[in-house]
Amino acid sequence: MKKQQFSYTLEDLAQRLGARLVGDPNVRVSGLSTLVDAAPGDIAFLANRAYLKYLADSQATAVLLHESHLDECKSHALVLDNPYLAYAELSRLFDPTAQAPQASVHPSAVVDETATLGANVEIGPQVVVGPGVSIGDGSRLQAGCVIGADSVLGEGCLLHPNVTLYHGVVIGARAVLHSGCVIGADGFGFAHDGKGWHKIAQLGGVMIGDDVEVGSCTSIDRGALGDTIIGNDVKIDSQVQIAHNVQIGDHSALAGCVGIAGSTKVGRYCLMGGGVGLAGHLEICDGVQVTGMSLVTNSITKPGVYSSGTGAMDNGLWRRNAVRFKQLDQLARRLNQVEKDLKDR
Amino acid sequence: MKKQQFSYTLEDLAQRLGARLVGDPNVRVSGLSTLVDAAPGDIAFLANRAYLKYLADSQATAVLLHESHLDECKSHALVLDNPYLAYAELSRLFDPTAQAPQASVHPSAVVDETATLGANVEIGPQVVVGPGVSIGDGSRLQAGCVIGADSVLGEGCLLHPNVTLYHGVVIGARAVLHSGCVIGADGFGFAHDGKGWHKIAQLGGVMIGDDVEVGSCTSIDRGALGDTIIGNDVKIDSQVQIAHNVQIGDHSALAGCVGIAGSTKVGRYCLMGGGVGLAGHLEICDGVQVTGMSLVTNSITKPGVYSSGTGAMDNGLWRRNAVRFKQLDQLARRLNQVEKDLKDR
Amino acid sequence: MKKQQFSYTLEDLAQRLGARLVGDPNVRVSGLSTLVDAAPGDIAFLANRAYLKYLADSQATAVLLHESHLDECKSHALVLDNPYLAYAELSRLFDPTAQAPQASVHPSAVVDETATLGANVEIGPQVVVGPGVSIGDGSRLQAGCVIGADSVLGEGCLLHPNVTLYHGVVIGARAVLHSGCVIGADGFGFAHDGKGWHKIAQLGGVMIGDDVEVGSCTSIDRGALGDTIIGNDVKIDSQVQIAHNVQIGDHSALAGCVGIAGSTKVGRYCLMGGGVGLAGHLEICDGVQVTGMSLVTNSITKPGVYSSGTGAMDNGLWRRNAVRFKQLDQLARRLNQVEKDLKDR
Repeated sequence: MKKQQFSYTLEDLAQRLGARLVGDPNVRVSGLSTLVDAAPGDIAFLANRAYLKYLADSQATAVLLHESHLDECKSHALVLDNPYLAYAELSRLFDPTAQAPQASVHPSAVVDETATLGANVEIGPQVVVGPGVSIGDGSRLQAGCVIGADSVLGEGCLLHPNVTLYHGVVIGARAVLHSGCVIGADGFGFAHDGKGWHKIAQLGGVMIGDDVEVGSCTSIDRGALGDTIIGNDVKIDSQVQIAHNVQIGDHSALAGCVGIAGSTKVGRYCLMGGGVGLAGHLEICDGVQVTGMSLVTNSITKPGVYSSGTGAMDNGLWRRNAVRFKQLDQLARRLNQVEKDLKDR
Repeated sequence: MKKQQFSYTLEDLAQRLGARLVGDPNVRVSGLSTLVDAAPGDIAFLANRAYLKYLADSQATAVLLHESHLDECKSHALVLDNPYLAYAELSRLFDPTAQAPQASVHPSAVVDETATLGANVEIGPQVVVGPGVSIGDGSRLQAGCVIGADSVLGEGCLLHPNVTLYHGVVIGARAVLHSGCVIGADGFGFAHDGKGWHKIAQLGGVMIGDDVEVGSCTSIDRGALGDTIIGNDVKIDSQVQIAHNVQIGDHSALAGCVGIAGSTKVGRYCLMGGGVGLAGHLEICDGVQVTGMSLVTNSITKPGVYSSGTGAMDNGLWRRNAVRFKQLDQLARRLNQVEKDLKDR
Repeated sequence: MKKQQFSYTLEDLAQRLGARLVGDPNVRVSGLSTLVDAAPGDIAFLANRAYLKYLADSQATAVLLHESHLDECKSHALVLDNPYLAYAELSRLFDPTAQAPQASVHPSAVVDETATLGANVEIGPQVVVGPGVSIGDGSRLQAGCVIGADSVLGEGCLLHPNVTLYHGVVIGARAVLHSGCVIGADGFGFAHDGKGWHKIAQLGGVMIGDDVEVGSCTSIDRGALGDTIIGNDVKIDSQVQIAHNVQIGDHSALAGCVGIAGSTKVGRYCLMGGGVGLAGHLEICDGVQVTGMSLVTNSITKPGVYSSGTGAMDNGLWRRNAVRFKQLDQLARRLNQVEKDLKDR
């Protein structure tokens, strides 16, 4: 995409980031890059020891880094305790999409007359806003979004194109919802009569706190009775499935392709790796990390790191081992017998 | 969302559900809730023994339950053999979205002049209906849905916002399709010439029976030659992938994140847990249940419950065990040798 | 869907496919089918020995096959070295959706005045094209697609309904993008300050080569700094998640439900089976195949086939074995001890 014209003095950046400047305060940078890709005029950052080897040869005009790496830095430096955190802040200073919203409703949008739009709300082309909807100040709904009846969006939300909210979805301030995500679809609830399925109407809603991000093509289902609840500052990646009546505690993060079955409660400050599956009706306490593609079928009551599965190996070796897995209980019993035989002699 | 005004006498509900009323027939309830969350004026239900402990203290005005729990119920009671099934029926009596459809085409919708709309069809804002499409009586297409050429929808279907059907998709009566689902996209078919891929045009369609529900962001691909076929009363959750020429038998249910590869046939009354993967070209007989995140690489000819994988454990323990998995065949061979040595002595 | 009227003489087809015709050059076929489903008037193909048993009884008027099966063929035959490849070519001759695009912009579409449309570009109903977008000759954007600012589409692309491209996405010639896919959403990047998350603006883009296909409801995220890069002739199925700064080499194929974490590089001519997960920051060399639902947590430097996990088995047996997996390291240590004891005697 076209590069926006940014230009900051190092003095200005040092002030904004709360960094100690080692270098010329009047030098300007106009781009943000990695150490490797940086060209003169860019600022880069060193936040991971693995990239230290690229520091000396970087073309960056300035580098964000920790005190401990200052000696090896040949460019201007912005010194901080947490360069990665500062990089996050810096990245937003170079974001060409960050613009103050201005009140506008595109003529192709269909906004119900009973909907309430706050100040400086932007409604993009082909958007549909249903009856009774309330949208907070400065929120932006990009092209093709559909907001169901009586849903509520807080202030400063950003809905990328083609987001769908069903009726009765309540979202706090500063949400970022990515394209194709669907919030408030029916939970998967059916009763069986021995012959077939009978739908259970999903009468609850979805309650989402402040500062939540939801990735593209992610599903968050509405509750059966009572709400599905997502806390504050929860970050959810793409292709995630959150079933009815799940609860996610504040500050937790779910990576791509995670699936959480109905009524499971995840605590605060939890991290779910890509593709993790949580069975239904579990309780996961605060501070739990589950590594990628693990299956959790029991509640977890102790903070820590949890895993399941096995890593990939050569297919021939895997075939032999996977066959043995089917015999594993037998192998263990035979080992018991061998130990007994040895002892008996 | 705003609570709709519902109000039923217990006598009325007992009649509708075929329940025996133990209590005052003239008492009214205006909400449906769980035992725990119920307030006076609500009806609740007890369908799972695990919740029996909440019965005595529930504030519910009336409770749906089985005869065997009647003694412990302090409120009015509706007694039934299958309270969960009755709850399903009851839930639909409290569904604020259940309204009789009324013939309407939103002015922003684009409906091809060769499309045929039945009686009382509702076409929402920004909908696109292609040439030759046929939509049955009382079907509702909510905002942003796109229906490809020559597709057919039966009576009483409900398409939530932003559903996409490609051309030549045939769906029976009373389908419920959730937002973001895509039905009829090309199956994943390519021939390799040793250098690169050559697309195989996907010339089949998708045939879906009556009373099917499809979750949000789910994909059901069209057939390569011949159709992908979904039977009657099949329930499909969110984030599911159904590849070309798959067949799913009547009354089967697929939980979230299931993936089924090409040409696999799943029987009737099957249950696939969340995240289950079925390889291609398999046959799964009727009455098979596969537990969450299992991988099925061979056909299954006997009804029953099937599983694979391992459950999550502490990461340190898991690392040690996962390393041993790579040695498993060697361990088994060594055990064989030990047994032989012992026998030879 | 309605069958289109196709009719080809066998002579014509033999010429187009470079096949040797064994039969009557003037005979016509009007449909393409499998050996089993073929009716008189159809052409079928035999590309897999497993279907040889259906050759003798097929009703097909003509069959594409390899020389080695000619003796068993009772119909007219088109003889080729690679019948599957020829079937791919043939399928496109029977594709009712293959039509030359004609310049048109639907009146309901919203196309920014600064967008550039090539010759014979088709813009469907409710489409939104942002400022600075460039769309190559003969590309088709079907209903409801949204193209973000400054994105570039090459010649002859086909975007099925409800595709979303964010800003700054660059796609080569002849891309086929299926409904619900989202290209260019933010990568999942946040810095933690010990209390909560701080968003890292995703400043990179997405670069996609020529001849790429992307399945329905698939996500390809934009880079954090620098681009996410998809090579030429890469085929991506439905429900796939490709995280920020991933690179996929030319001619690789990813089956449904694959998830690839950030910054991982996949080589050329790789095949990822359904549901495969690749951890972040890996390098997978050219020519690697990973079987379905495997987890890859380390880089792979040698071409070959890789696998993880275990196949499904009866649930009772599985429970016993899965418990033993948790003891596997202990079992191995006990086996070591037994061997030592035996040796010491």
